[in-house]
Amino acid sequence: MEQRISLVSLGVDDLDRARTFYERLGWHGREIEETVFLQAGPLMLVLWGRSKLAADSGIPDTGRGSFGGVTLAHNVRSAAEVDEIVAAAEAAGATMTRPPAPTFYGGYAGVFLDPDGHAWEIAFNPGFVMDDAGGIAFP
Amino acid sequence: MEQRISLVSLGVDDLDRARTFYERLGWHGREIEETVFLQAGPLMLVLWGRSKLAADSGIPDTGRGSFGGVTLAHNVRSAAEVDEIVAAAEAAGATMTRPPAPTFYGGYAGVFLDPDGHAWEIAFNPGFVMDDAGGIAFP
Repeated sequence: MEQRISLVSLGVDDLDRARTFYERLGWHGREIEETVFLQAGPLMLVLWGRSKLAADSGIPDTGRGSFGGVTLAHNVRSAAEVDEIVAAAEAAGATMTRPPAPTFYGGYAGVFLDPDGHAWEIAFNPGFVMDDAGGIAFP
Repeated sequence: MEQRISLVSLGVDDLDRARTFYERLGWHGREIEETVFLQAGPLMLVLWGRSKLAADSGIPDTGRGSFGGVTLAHNVRSAAEVDEIVAAAEAAGATMTRPPAPTFYGGYAGVFLDPDGHAWEIAFNPGFVMDDAGGIAFP
């Protein structure tokens, strides 16, 4: 198995609401059969009805817990960018769970939930190097 | 906000068990302060204690539901590769939720859960083009 993630699929209760949220943050997607694919570098973020995603995965869905066990991070190049994105997310309907603040590792980050409760950390982390395309790696 | 995912963090109950599972599938990680970072192209897969990840994200964790609402996919170049990886995952302790089979879109895929219940679809999908580095996109 090569070390690769090809898609990150988020189960959503209302596809239009979810799509609108990401579009308000500047993302662009392509909808195919009630599934929205948003290219993110070499992988795709996918928005799909939660019940369909669970059924397609062969997983019973008895309702969501308080924490799904997965978080996504979007790293940026400055603390100011963290503030800008978090403000835009709040304006688009996100729920803040950790307001932007300095982090123990010398960075600056905040966390919000999208309309379906999926957690995004927006982070400036000087411990990673970021290439021109936004890819991160250890120095 | 640029269209980018920098990290996908999986909350795990037992870090060593989780790390061993991914290592048995051929992944290599770097552990820093009880967190395992596994480079995956321009982003990182991160294994971190579930309670720490929840707390760090400002999200109460009252236990996991049957479905976390997020799935990951790892796309490959052939149906045979799907079978190989799924077999290796089962041998490493994965729980199959959808045995490999032809898909409605003309591909071939299966789904398993890692030891902490995180869903991975291993898929051959001829509807995407895959570059040499494994990145996917629409034709």
